[in-house]
Amino acid sequence: MAPAVNTVTLASGHKMPLVGFGLWKVPADKAADTVYNAIKAGYRLFDGAYDYQNEHEAGKGIKRAIDEGLVKREEIFVTTKLWNNYHRKDHALAMAKAQNEAWGLGYIDLYLIHFPIALPYIEPEKLRYPGWWLDAEQTQIERANVPIKETWEALEEVVDSGIAKSIGISNAQAQTIYDIQTYARHPISSLQVEHHPYLVQPDLVELAHEENIVITAYSSFGPQSFLELPPAFRKRPETVPLLFDVDVVKKAADRTGKSPAQVLLRWATQRNIAVIPKSNNVGRLQQNLEATGFDLTDDEIKAISALDKGLRFNDPGFYLDKPLRIFA
Amino acid sequence: MAPAVNTVTLASGHKMPLVGFGLWKVPADKAADTVYNAIKAGYRLFDGAYDYQNEHEAGKGIKRAIDEGLVKREEIFVTTKLWNNYHRKDHALAMAKAQNEAWGLGYIDLYLIHFPIALPYIEPEKLRYPGWWLDAEQTQIERANVPIKETWEALEEVVDSGIAKSIGISNAQAQTIYDIQTYARHPISSLQVEHHPYLVQPDLVELAHEENIVITAYSSFGPQSFLELPPAFRKRPETVPLLFDVDVVKKAADRTGKSPAQVLLRWATQRNIAVIPKSNNVGRLQQNLEATGFDLTDDEIKAISALDKGLRFNDPGFYLDKPLRIFA
Repeated sequence: MAPAVNTVTLASGHKMPLVGFGLWKVPADKAADTVYNAIKAGYRLFDGAYDYQNEHEAGKGIKRAIDEGLVKREEIFVTTKLWNNYHRKDHALAMAKAQNEAWGLGYIDLYLIHFPIALPYIEPEKLRYPGWWLDAEQTQIERANVPIKETWEALEEVVDSGIAKSIGISNAQAQTIYDIQTYARHPISSLQVEHHPYLVQPDLVELAHEENIVITAYSSFGPQSFLELPPAFRKRPETVPLLFDVDVVKKAADRTGKSPAQVLLRWATQRNIAVIPKSNNVGRLQQNLEATGFDLTDDEIKAISALDKGLRFNDPGFYLDKPLRIFA
Repeated sequence: MAPAVNTVTLASGHKMPLVGFGLWKVPADKAADTVYNAIKAGYRLFDGAYDYQNEHEAGKGIKRAIDEGLVKREEIFVTTKLWNNYHRKDHALAMAKAQNEAWGLGYIDLYLIHFPIALPYIEPEKLRYPGWWLDAEQTQIERANVPIKETWEALEEVVDSGIAKSIGISNAQAQTIYDIQTYARHPISSLQVEHHPYLVQPDLVELAHEENIVITAYSSFGPQSFLELPPAFRKRPETVPLLFDVDVVKKAADRTGKSPAQVLLRWATQRNIAVIPKSNNVGRLQQNLEATGFDLTDDEIKAISALDKGLRFNDPGFYLDKPLRIFA
């Protein structure tokens, strides 16, 4: 029996589970089974993105669970994201439509701008999944002249057309959020940002709270997710101890009888921050989901927050060694 | 004899002196004489703002120097700023016109958005100089729904109309800058930000350099300028030693035979960052201006930069204890 689903209510009025399954780095050929098994384990929120290259397959896993009567569509919450090359209004609208069809579930629950930076449009027929840069010889990341306002207004049309229930943004700074708030017809429901004890961003978290925006934390385990990537991505992660091995985390795990991973997730969810861990291991998958059934003490939360180093791992300009400084 | 004026070329094509005189906290009744004497000492750049409440008087000081043949208008560089309550296009246009008339020098050299946050419009006839908040009972800082894009486009019209030669922004984060760059018809010529060894912001400085935006540093002496303000403003400054007393600064001062203040200014100008110190003392006024006639070693610059604590003193939400988090 799956545990009761802890939810938060978004500014849009829709409810979102506090714990979800993150689809970054889940290989397309394993995504359907992974998602299906995650639903069996009790997951109801799936966090995808065009850039993760597995939307169609993840959708197939959800459809199988629905077809087998394990869940209803309305019990599932699908988040996905618009990639940087499609910020122009007509491209964003076309992409939302195509992504919704890829998932094949009738609608998207939450559609986010993946990064508040526009890159030049590339026809999907020419290159289906452009990354931050196209080849190693490129010394610059060429940006495209698409204001965030145009992209946000496209996302609002995606809501108007019924494709998405809620919209939001990922990797945004305070000023981007305040600026969107000046013209938003539909609210910013969630802000998805890197958030772990080495990058706490207390002011940004407070700001979101004040603005009635639910924070979704990514990379809750800090360096962990980046250590399996190529060397450039490991430059910063390799400078710090794994969060699982840090004393205050281990102590809280010992006291509560939970795993360090569960402590790290609870550190977020106890402050009403949603989390989207990923695991390929069935046991850990189950453990991660059980990240709301116990409480840390205020002192434990403070001690874990005190690990803050302002250390960001997902900083594309840094790991690509290109002049792009999204978080300066 | 005034020293030769070191300048940088802005993206607009106009030249700006690297060292100027900052008019923040110069009392209106002393501004004319202060500015006149600063011109005599060799100052050519004056950094003002509507919010400093001394534009008319500063302009009078400049006019006196011009009338007496000390300088020509084209040798003087006037920077001023649009305050938060006038971000709406028609208000910004009216304000630029009124501020230009207050200075009385025919045109403004550089017109900046003071903060990338809009506050509600208040008629100048009702309250001439609204600050961040109107009275102590106010618990919120009410923002106004004016997108930065509207304000930037107003500033471009200010250039079109001949009122300002160049435009820019103050207190902006990376994403604000990148976003303005997507629609700017006239370039961002300067970014004015808090910049001293306790708040180095190396990534933001690099970004500006990459985007051909000249950084103007304010509060070059760090805590110093804030210690003369009421208690709330001193909360952060009082937690750190004065930069004048810090070992690496004193050592560089000893080696070069300059004052710690001159070292702090040269630390910026040697990296092509403009500075705008203020002093009421004639000797220091002269010293501050001589902040380009000597060189620090690379090691000295690095050692001073290593004092970085990410410590921001001009953080209105923090010192007002209100929910406004401009730099999160």
